[in-house]
Amino acid sequence: MSEQRKIDVTELALRDGHQSLLATRLALEDMEPACADIDAAGYWSVECWGGATYDACIRFLNEDPWERLRTFRRLLPNSRLQMLLRGQNLLGYRHYEDGVVDRFVGKSVENGMDVFRVFDALNDVRNVEQAIRAVKREGGHAQGTICYTMSPLHTVEGYVQMARELMDLGSDSLCLKDMAALLQPQPAYDIVKAIKEGVGEDVRVHLHCHATTGVTLVALMKAIEAGADAVDTSISSLSLGPGHNPTESLVEMLEGTPYTTDVELERLLPVKDHFAAVRPRYAKFASNILGVETEIFKSQIPGGMISNMESQLRAQGAGDRVKEVLEEVPRVRKDAGYPPLVTPSSQIVGTQAVFNVLMGRYKVLTGEFADLMLGYYGQTIGGLNPEVVEIAEKQAKKSPITIRPADLLEPEWDKLRAEALSTEGCNGTDEDVLTEALFPQVAPGFFATRPEGPKNVGTDPAQAGEGGGGGSGPDAVRTHIKYEVTVNGTSHVVSVDPA
Amino acid sequence: MSEQRKIDVTELALRDGHQSLLATRLALEDMEPACADIDAAGYWSVECWGGATYDACIRFLNEDPWERLRTFRRLLPNSRLQMLLRGQNLLGYRHYEDGVVDRFVGKSVENGMDVFRVFDALNDVRNVEQAIRAVKREGGHAQGTICYTMSPLHTVEGYVQMARELMDLGSDSLCLKDMAALLQPQPAYDIVKAIKEGVGEDVRVHLHCHATTGVTLVALMKAIEAGADAVDTSISSLSLGPGHNPTESLVEMLEGTPYTTDVELERLLPVKDHFAAVRPRYAKFASNILGVETEIFKSQIPGGMISNMESQLRAQGAGDRVKEVLEEVPRVRKDAGYPPLVTPSSQIVGTQAVFNVLMGRYKVLTGEFADLMLGYYGQTIGGLNPEVVEIAEKQAKKSPITIRPADLLEPEWDKLRAEALSTEGCNGTDEDVLTEALFPQVAPGFFATRPEGPKNVGTDPAQAGEGGGGGSGPDAVRTHIKYEVTVNGTSHVVSVDPA
Repeated sequence: MSEQRKIDVTELALRDGHQSLLATRLALEDMEPACADIDAAGYWSVECWGGATYDACIRFLNEDPWERLRTFRRLLPNSRLQMLLRGQNLLGYRHYEDGVVDRFVGKSVENGMDVFRVFDALNDVRNVEQAIRAVKREGGHAQGTICYTMSPLHTVEGYVQMARELMDLGSDSLCLKDMAALLQPQPAYDIVKAIKEGVGEDVRVHLHCHATTGVTLVALMKAIEAGADAVDTSISSLSLGPGHNPTESLVEMLEGTPYTTDVELERLLPVKDHFAAVRPRYAKFASNILGVETEIFKSQIPGGMISNMESQLRAQGAGDRVKEVLEEVPRVRKDAGYPPLVTPSSQIVGTQAVFNVLMGRYKVLTGEFADLMLGYYGQTIGGLNPEVVEIAEKQAKKSPITIRPADLLEPEWDKLRAEALSTEGCNGTDEDVLTEALFPQVAPGFFATRPEGPKNVGTDPAQAGEGGGGGSGPDAVRTHIKYEVTVNGTSHVVSVDPA
Repeated sequence: MSEQRKIDVTELALRDGHQSLLATRLALEDMEPACADIDAAGYWSVECWGGATYDACIRFLNEDPWERLRTFRRLLPNSRLQMLLRGQNLLGYRHYEDGVVDRFVGKSVENGMDVFRVFDALNDVRNVEQAIRAVKREGGHAQGTICYTMSPLHTVEGYVQMARELMDLGSDSLCLKDMAALLQPQPAYDIVKAIKEGVGEDVRVHLHCHATTGVTLVALMKAIEAGADAVDTSISSLSLGPGHNPTESLVEMLEGTPYTTDVELERLLPVKDHFAAVRPRYAKFASNILGVETEIFKSQIPGGMISNMESQLRAQGAGDRVKEVLEEVPRVRKDAGYPPLVTPSSQIVGTQAVFNVLMGRYKVLTGEFADLMLGYYGQTIGGLNPEVVEIAEKQAKKSPITIRPADLLEPEWDKLRAEALSTEGCNGTDEDVLTEALFPQVAPGFFATRPEGPKNVGTDPAQAGEGGGGGSGPDAVRTHIKYEVTVNGTSHVVSVDPA
């Protein structure tokens, strides 16, 4: 067993772990005590920052997300810090002009970020180009990301092609990202194997899986057998359900195999105990998905997306039409060229399916769905349904585009900076400008209350037993989304708010 | 993919599923509505009977266990019914004479049982001989069982040897039984592979794993790759934690692999929904183990056993000495020849470890531990510590034995029958005699209240939120256990009651 191959491990507890299980509400002060052990445990990297954590910091926790990053940098001096970046969207919900992308990446590296996992919800490589280049220029580790989904058009060869394109952009490594726990063991094996054979044995492949369906620890095993270099897990006390596979189980799973990790189980014990003690304080934000859910394999519709659509239907007095909507989703997804169903595409497709059922198929398009059909989010893998594209063109009064969406944008940094500086409480730093740019509706409130300091929203478990967090699962609407709906030339505004 | 190998599946929900998760309290009436779908879903067998369910029927549910069996036979006409049998202990807590074993097996087959999984807590094959022969004679399916455990003396070769012995007894199949979720993927692969190579490719190997440590679905995968014929799972809504891997995840895990099952996911959906709806009614009996626990790999001590020992220590005002006891357990287990830690050996070893810490090492032996050291439970794999055997001989005033323990027993059916017939409420059937014989302390009360009919102990979830079930986990003491402790010739009686 002297020839064991070392598998690198990324710990997710500080970002996606609590994002998936506790609606991203974990306060920095409830993570700090675990940092010394995490730093010494032997991880390849520690994921600790991303769009939802940034959002939650300023929206719910009155924490400066940049201060959080600097704190992690200080408390995890020996660890690679890792973040999830939504390509050209950065951490926001629209495309930003390339100069803003450069600024954001620059500031992130300056504040301590090491590894940037860059993805696009449509798997449009053009949407991650600028971010990957910026990361390389700043000396960071750029991880090009493939969102895993299933459709008649998604093939192993297609994923290999995307892997090749991401490596050609200069990525330091690849991530196969399975945000819906759909990655079964055999495709995990096949894709990783094919990437290694087709793109290069020395191409680092990382695997990110959620645990929802119960099969993905097996997928990690098969991916490792196929040559995967690194896998993502979360400490057991912040794992499973819509979260991730437990770090300790991953380590134990490899016992006796030709694979091993550098993770020391002894150091994980206090980390586990810490989060086991903290977690009950966030019970009211807890996902109401318990155990496993495997129906997603059939429906392809993530659980959180279903509860979202149910809320929308109930709000329209049509709570009895869920089944029709569930049957409509695959059709809408097909018409849109089989986008992966992940934020924001899951909301866009889901809401359009609701509209189709309530108002007749494509009688009314949401502004977002029209944009999706017209290429303003980028390209999906499949052929768009030309009839629906035509409807979109008419309703939105826009032409379809085939260029990279961000190419339509003018330089905007100076404008964003001016807007931020005019906001009360803005401290004038580029970091604050970015906060304003990414979350223009939330930033002003945060700037105003920032001097009051962080607000821990955890509560004593004895008072917190008020049941699940409703629609606060990983796919719930997290921000106010405004749809512009144009019917026969008349514009309507439809709002969807966080549950 | 036309060459896919079919993997058989045993559904555990009706026995070990609720035994592990709901302290065996599930009422028959809460299982009946799921039977039609289970019967049609394509399982190889449906486990539905065993020692703890029999015990719980008469102790808590006022249900006749034989009537339960006949009901399952009626509601599952197309399914193999399967039970777990503790070898020469049958479903009780002592060795029974061979004639009683024959009667029990005969009556079980007559009432509808098909598959008998026969195990011995010490892996002493002599303790399963009689039961396996009886099953064969009655036309049932005899499954010889290997309890999986880890120790310096347990080797793949040793398991293969045991497999060979079980097949030589006439077993129709083998089960590798991992009651503590200790079976990691590599040993799962190695043992199954070695059995297939060493005993025969056509020897059916079934795999039973609990889910506690989070790694055993991967173990099922690797065992299947090594040639395993069948695996045990439980419907997702009665799975995970100290229970088992979810049936739906097993089926989805195999998608695209060279393996498949006959299980139809469509038929599982109503089964899942049914138990999801029923489960909250049993919240007060629910295991307090959530998520995964991997420390057992280090300590080898099942979680339920730890909470048991903690109760014992607290009762002695020594709650602060848990750590010493945890360190003492491996020593006691070694001295006893590395028995698997499963009921009743886990209680016997655990209690002796408590005694050693409180009163000095082996100053006082429990009657059970003395019996274990003197061979009255059968043989363990390892060499017993001769010094401790000597202490046992002195304290218990008994000589060590090397013969099969049941060979010491005289025919006892007539006596047991007479005892039963003299008990008020006994209906004179052999089934009632067996109930009296197996649970002499519980049967009289059951016979007295039986006319009142089954008692459903589930409660409205709104009233049931009184927290975890304390020591009601799978390894908790379930019956009143009386230890005779002899110190310097003076006998003391020590009692342990269910938590």
